[in-house]
Amino acid sequence: MTKPHLRSFARALGDFASGADTPRAFLDRCLAEIEAREPEVKAFTALQIETSQAAADASTQRWHEGEPLSPIDGMPIGIKDVIETADMPTGMGSGLFDGWSPGFDSASVHALREAGAIILGKTVTTEFAATRPGPTRNPHDLTRTPGGSSSGSAAGVGCGMLAGGLGTQVVGSIIRPASYCGCFGYKPSLGSLNRGGSHDYMSQSCQGVLAATLEDTWQIAREIVVRAGGDPGCTGLVGPAIAPDAKAPATLAFLETPGWEAAAPGARDAMLRVLEDLRATGIEIVSRKDTPEVARLEDVLPEVLPLTRKINAWESRWPLNTYVDRDASKLSQGMIDRLHEAEAMTIDDYRHAVARRTQIRTIYQAIADRAEACITLSAPDVAPVGIESTGNPVFAVPASLLGVPALSLPLLRLGHLPLGVQTLGFFSEDANLFAISAAIVEIIAPANANVA
Amino acid sequence: MTKPHLRSFARALGDFASGADTPRAFLDRCLAEIEAREPEVKAFTALQIETSQAAADASTQRWHEGEPLSPIDGMPIGIKDVIETADMPTGMGSGLFDGWSPGFDSASVHALREAGAIILGKTVTTEFAATRPGPTRNPHDLTRTPGGSSSGSAAGVGCGMLAGGLGTQVVGSIIRPASYCGCFGYKPSLGSLNRGGSHDYMSQSCQGVLAATLEDTWQIAREIVVRAGGDPGCTGLVGPAIAPDAKAPATLAFLETPGWEAAAPGARDAMLRVLEDLRATGIEIVSRKDTPEVARLEDVLPEVLPLTRKINAWESRWPLNTYVDRDASKLSQGMIDRLHEAEAMTIDDYRHAVARRTQIRTIYQAIADRAEACITLSAPDVAPVGIESTGNPVFAVPASLLGVPALSLPLLRLGHLPLGVQTLGFFSEDANLFAISAAIVEIIAPANANVA
Repeated sequence: MTKPHLRSFARALGDFASGADTPRAFLDRCLAEIEAREPEVKAFTALQIETSQAAADASTQRWHEGEPLSPIDGMPIGIKDVIETADMPTGMGSGLFDGWSPGFDSASVHALREAGAIILGKTVTTEFAATRPGPTRNPHDLTRTPGGSSSGSAAGVGCGMLAGGLGTQVVGSIIRPASYCGCFGYKPSLGSLNRGGSHDYMSQSCQGVLAATLEDTWQIAREIVVRAGGDPGCTGLVGPAIAPDAKAPATLAFLETPGWEAAAPGARDAMLRVLEDLRATGIEIVSRKDTPEVARLEDVLPEVLPLTRKINAWESRWPLNTYVDRDASKLSQGMIDRLHEAEAMTIDDYRHAVARRTQIRTIYQAIADRAEACITLSAPDVAPVGIESTGNPVFAVPASLLGVPALSLPLLRLGHLPLGVQTLGFFSEDANLFAISAAIVEIIAPANANVA
Repeated sequence: MTKPHLRSFARALGDFASGADTPRAFLDRCLAEIEAREPEVKAFTALQIETSQAAADASTQRWHEGEPLSPIDGMPIGIKDVIETADMPTGMGSGLFDGWSPGFDSASVHALREAGAIILGKTVTTEFAATRPGPTRNPHDLTRTPGGSSSGSAAGVGCGMLAGGLGTQVVGSIIRPASYCGCFGYKPSLGSLNRGGSHDYMSQSCQGVLAATLEDTWQIAREIVVRAGGDPGCTGLVGPAIAPDAKAPATLAFLETPGWEAAAPGARDAMLRVLEDLRATGIEIVSRKDTPEVARLEDVLPEVLPLTRKINAWESRWPLNTYVDRDASKLSQGMIDRLHEAEAMTIDDYRHAVARRTQIRTIYQAIADRAEACITLSAPDVAPVGIESTGNPVFAVPASLLGVPALSLPLLRLGHLPLGVQTLGFFSEDANLFAISAAIVEIIAPANANVA
């Protein structure tokens, strides 16, 4: 069994151009990893091996002719199984949609195909991207969860079966599994990537990316947005044609969030060492102790998880009520409970929750006057043992509610297990967050630097 | 053949309560109208007669017991065929979706059923709610178009086959057919009614209502919003439990829009008489001639239709590109042209268009300092002869781009054909627009007052 490692497509581009490597060979390495690891990791709900090989051959030919369709031409990507694909079913982790084939690609998948990317498979999601887990195991330790809800994309990228994966996040569904599986995870500013044909309807929902490096992560998002845009009416991800260069920030705000108290001692120590290492390079770190803007945010962050649950419940009333009409026995108790919570709410309850969310977003935005980005853990600890739960989303939910960009950087390791450092930016300033995060990655020698 | 007339459910409520009338008898009157007129009007793509009769019997029983589920319990409603229904196909006016059955109700349809409404049938839409017409004919003159894209809902309501209908509007798809078919049409503030399960994805798209009276119109929208909310993250339609009382405005702004020059002389004369009649009751009418805020808006309104087409094209790139992948021969030339327009655009072109839209919305909002609502025609003339075109949307498109509420009031008649007067309100102030519109209806004795 190979040790889990990440597989960067971006770093292979030079070799594709020179002919020293090819997209077909890259795909074959992914397929070898799948053969070796998939039987135990269970990241996929469907695979398209033969059509992917043909697509990789066509990509290889384009690179050979010096005419790739984009920098991700030939990149093997997995698609979270709530996002529609023309050639594979979209099961949403629910018996209600077992084998369901809408027959059309989502906006993002169509854009990826136009860019030459290879849609290698569909990846396991929790039930309707919420809490009931699928069968996926953590590639770093099979006794542990990969996190959720983007479980399969994170596990597949985390052990090099995929170069990249699409995920979605409304609570902690990208940042948490990226942390547990040791890859980069990117939850964009709200509305940055077109959700057309993806079953993540909620007002905090976001489509995002899991990948091996910041360059790969940015490139996947970028190639989607120039072809499919953001959500209708939104600006969509703004930024350069390739990942922004590293740019060290003058000031970062350290956020404890309600997660700090719950964090494992080893995780806290590791995070504090990161802050020390950043300080040592001249970056100012401000926190609730010394900065009123940060203190004001920290004071309201305990509201974020219950407020998110309330908003999500109301916004899930439909379609959950139609699923119950169809066959309630196929829904988890968690989904039934969410519907009951929704049915006990009035539209005025919902309006109050949304209004409070807007206030909290304003409180967060005030930090922009004091720091260029925020930094915290991605999760309170490494992946917990067991696959019955996808772990605690406490560190990930603030960025979801705030609607701001967040990245999980695979910089820490406790024993044999990865743990992410999370950076949070300001709305629509995703490119700036990538530049700052690249500088942080350069400073904190990645413990998990085994990128192939 | 009966003369086309409107059928109000709201006005029958007293008789339901007293037992002098029943929802079952109401439905049977609709069914008799359908038997008489549907063969020539062709408003429906599907009908559910037996289940509707059973539902009407159950509703009758609830009214008899004094426990109706809502004021629309038993109301026969038609659903535009881009909105999903569990028990009928959703064909979207396209051969690509002929007989397509998603198997779940949309958010709005589920809410209507919870309120006791009877989902009597699916109504004809143009292809993907855009321009290629269906087979529906105008019930007032079978040689003429009913307008589009909510063709079947307007025609069905316009001749009393239905008490109400759901429609959608992104250009002129509710206001225009309401005008041509002589019923009320309501295009709400953007995001007011949950679009979940409706195939109107665009950033200007809105779900709305066609009905026989303002009371019916309001009630349908209200019963949806309290159960399904608005679009995720939106406040949703705000207002009282039953339609607001009439409230005469002190000042109305008359908008010419680019439609005025194109309007038929008879339509202009009729509109000018309406303004005179309103003035005669003491309402001040301001216009571009005397009011700089109105003049500034009129100056930019010529941009509204091309800007809308550009925004809609980009936002239709997906899913149109997936439809072409499937079977381009099943798309109209208009859809192919729209996709080509989209593919010639960059995301920056789209961003500029959206930014300009935002500026125009600000220019409109400034009128709120000078007038309580705006008033104009709903269309440049009565329904044109022929069913190959759904008519000119020039008067309807401003409210679509502005995202503000609009109502078409069936107040005019040129010869044997209806024509609407349109009122436009300010964002999220839909209830106020209903109150003002009710006052206008009271002042201008409706030429089309034959409400059953």
